[in-house]
Amino acid sequence: MRDGFFRAVSTAEFRDLLHGFAPLGLETVPLGAACRRFLAADVVSGEDLPLASRASMDGYAVRAAEVFGAGESNPGYLDLAMDIPIGVIPEAALPPGHCARIVTGAFLPAGADAVVMVEYAEDLGAGAIEIRRPVAPGDNVMLAGEDARRGETALGAGTRLRPQEIGLLAALGVVDVPVGRMPSVALLSTGDELVPAEATPQPGQIRDVNSHALAAMLAQAGAAATTFPLVPDDLDSIRDALKTAAEGHDLTLLSGGSSVGARDFTLEALKSLGAEVLAHGVAISPGKPTILASLYGKPVIGLPGQVTSAQVVLDVFGLPLLAHLAGDKAAFDRAPRTFPALLSRNVASKQGREDHVRVRLEHRPGELPLAHPVLGKSGLLKTLLMADGLIVIPADLEGLAGQAVVAVRPI
Amino acid sequence: MRDGFFRAVSTAEFRDLLHGFAPLGLETVPLGAACRRFLAADVVSGEDLPLASRASMDGYAVRAAEVFGAGESNPGYLDLAMDIPIGVIPEAALPPGHCARIVTGAFLPAGADAVVMVEYAEDLGAGAIEIRRPVAPGDNVMLAGEDARRGETALGAGTRLRPQEIGLLAALGVVDVPVGRMPSVALLSTGDELVPAEATPQPGQIRDVNSHALAAMLAQAGAAATTFPLVPDDLDSIRDALKTAAEGHDLTLLSGGSSVGARDFTLEALKSLGAEVLAHGVAISPGKPTILASLYGKPVIGLPGQVTSAQVVLDVFGLPLLAHLAGDKAAFDRAPRTFPALLSRNVASKQGREDHVRVRLEHRPGELPLAHPVLGKSGLLKTLLMADGLIVIPADLEGLAGQAVVAVRPI
Repeated sequence: MRDGFFRAVSTAEFRDLLHGFAPLGLETVPLGAACRRFLAADVVSGEDLPLASRASMDGYAVRAAEVFGAGESNPGYLDLAMDIPIGVIPEAALPPGHCARIVTGAFLPAGADAVVMVEYAEDLGAGAIEIRRPVAPGDNVMLAGEDARRGETALGAGTRLRPQEIGLLAALGVVDVPVGRMPSVALLSTGDELVPAEATPQPGQIRDVNSHALAAMLAQAGAAATTFPLVPDDLDSIRDALKTAAEGHDLTLLSGGSSVGARDFTLEALKSLGAEVLAHGVAISPGKPTILASLYGKPVIGLPGQVTSAQVVLDVFGLPLLAHLAGDKAAFDRAPRTFPALLSRNVASKQGREDHVRVRLEHRPGELPLAHPVLGKSGLLKTLLMADGLIVIPADLEGLAGQAVVAVRPI
Repeated sequence: MRDGFFRAVSTAEFRDLLHGFAPLGLETVPLGAACRRFLAADVVSGEDLPLASRASMDGYAVRAAEVFGAGESNPGYLDLAMDIPIGVIPEAALPPGHCARIVTGAFLPAGADAVVMVEYAEDLGAGAIEIRRPVAPGDNVMLAGEDARRGETALGAGTRLRPQEIGLLAALGVVDVPVGRMPSVALLSTGDELVPAEATPQPGQIRDVNSHALAAMLAQAGAAATTFPLVPDDLDSIRDALKTAAEGHDLTLLSGGSSVGARDFTLEALKSLGAEVLAHGVAISPGKPTILASLYGKPVIGLPGQVTSAQVVLDVFGLPLLAHLAGDKAAFDRAPRTFPALLSRNVASKQGREDHVRVRLEHRPGELPLAHPVLGKSGLLKTLLMADGLIVIPADLEGLAGQAVVAVRPI
């Protein structure tokens, strides 16, 4: 019996299977390496931030009540009590009827509750300051504790760290950051016809594309991949390579084996190592021959050898798995970032299969861009080269009509 | 006379000034480091790709004309001439009336012009193959030269290299890639009130946020920044730091100096080093106090010290400049990737100033997300922390009305 798609699953089932792999533990990384990682523990603020109220403009610190009603035609007058430089907390409180000259970022003296911008005040000399605009309490002031409060959770576990969160961690003095460990990835390509990119192919041979394209995708996602030497299409070679890869890495991606015979070797090699084959075939196009197994409790994805299929499957399933393992609690729920376009013509699809169609965008001023489907064989490079993004045709549809508004996921 | 905004410019003028800096030269990097870089020279294909026609499915290579009209009820019959394994070019041509068993990726024999999928054929034994579907010439075949043609430009200078372009370069054997040099960036923070993130602030001091948040943004853009020690707010220190930074780096970013006095030091330091101050003040909010100078012919951007302003200005101007210097020919023309949302309420803006408003998104199934403006002082961290993206209010508008469809740029 030919070993066909004995455990073909829907894309939703495939995601559930991926979700079953436990996220890796936490590690502590320096702040400079924490961006794009997922926080592995709550960060509780050890202090108020700002520690005390600070001016957000150059001007004069005042009691707002004392300049109530001040205007161009009826200015208020205050005595200058002090100059507050940057970098110190004023020791003296602001006496009633007084103001303090203050620069952006400097701390307010006790008693002051607002800042009048320098544009609306004038130093009349001899310690008299004319105020030509009223202010409300808190105007032009960053209040103590407005960014974070001592003892409260400033950032929760699972938060994806963007540059602004890195800034908050710096402000709180968190320079060693607990984050989910980023998976180590082993990247294997099988195929007797393959030669390394730097080699000159003999007749019948072709250069290995997948190792390079997939490594680039992984690098963009923040993961360092170990690229293994090319694996010949025989059982022993594939088994040995899979064993070494899975023993030493958190995630193994093996591409190749697009033909039935080669797929069988991969399955046989996995089984002989005691792996559990979780899925063999996914209702997705391109990418149907995808294999998922658990080897030593770690995920192994057998990607199709066709270059387009391999990249689409890594994008649709592999990168969310990477984020899930690295501590992203919503890796499989978060809708990918898309933007709308108008489909240029009908696209047919087979019911029961989720299609990821490459589209080329034609931008039009003032209108939605046109999305032109880029059809072509998934073993070719050109369809992805011509494409700006992907659109999804759900498994329950037989296609999409021209002029439909589609959600384009940029690639 | 107070040195105010003596050379304030519009955002369009600011971009033109940035565009005036010449892109850096080219460098050659290994293929594994070329993703996201800009190709600095045309890549001409040295061969046809594929070199000869290849099967894109498992099945039987045939002459399409010989299975014309074949169907379930009237199958065609061909003699099996050979088995074509992967990795060789068949030496013999396909004799008329014959077919060849072929696997995905294998090269077609001379004479064959299509592949019948294995699902639509049956091996009857004794060398007879039954064909139950017709094929057109080219069906299930990747044609010679379909991806690239010998002697033609496969990728043009200026192309941004994505994973799929990396794949094409691998297929062509281009393992040393000529790309625009990525700028080296010096990152300086000034401010007497600042202490390093790992220090405990004394009363009046605060931890340096900008060095960390800006370095994270630069890293995301693929640039390695050299973070300088914190620079005290005095003329000599700022001048010395700027001199060292600009001598050794392609782009210098100095953040700080939000107060008028500190800004003056930066300007004075630049002038004393012989820099040409190109802009002092930009009609943008946040980010008005931004400075642009040319020092030793290299760009120096004085970013505002306010954390939000610094990040927005780096995003709006700094990152496009980085891409421009690295060889992106459309760095200032390319519209940033946005997606639509519905503004939740009116937002006012000052005419003559381009506003970049932080928005928080509320996702709603089946409807456009709601974009809630996040207002607050640009010295605070929280507005960017709460925000999912930015929307732009052009300088010629006085605001946007609630329920307007806005283009959100994710951050």
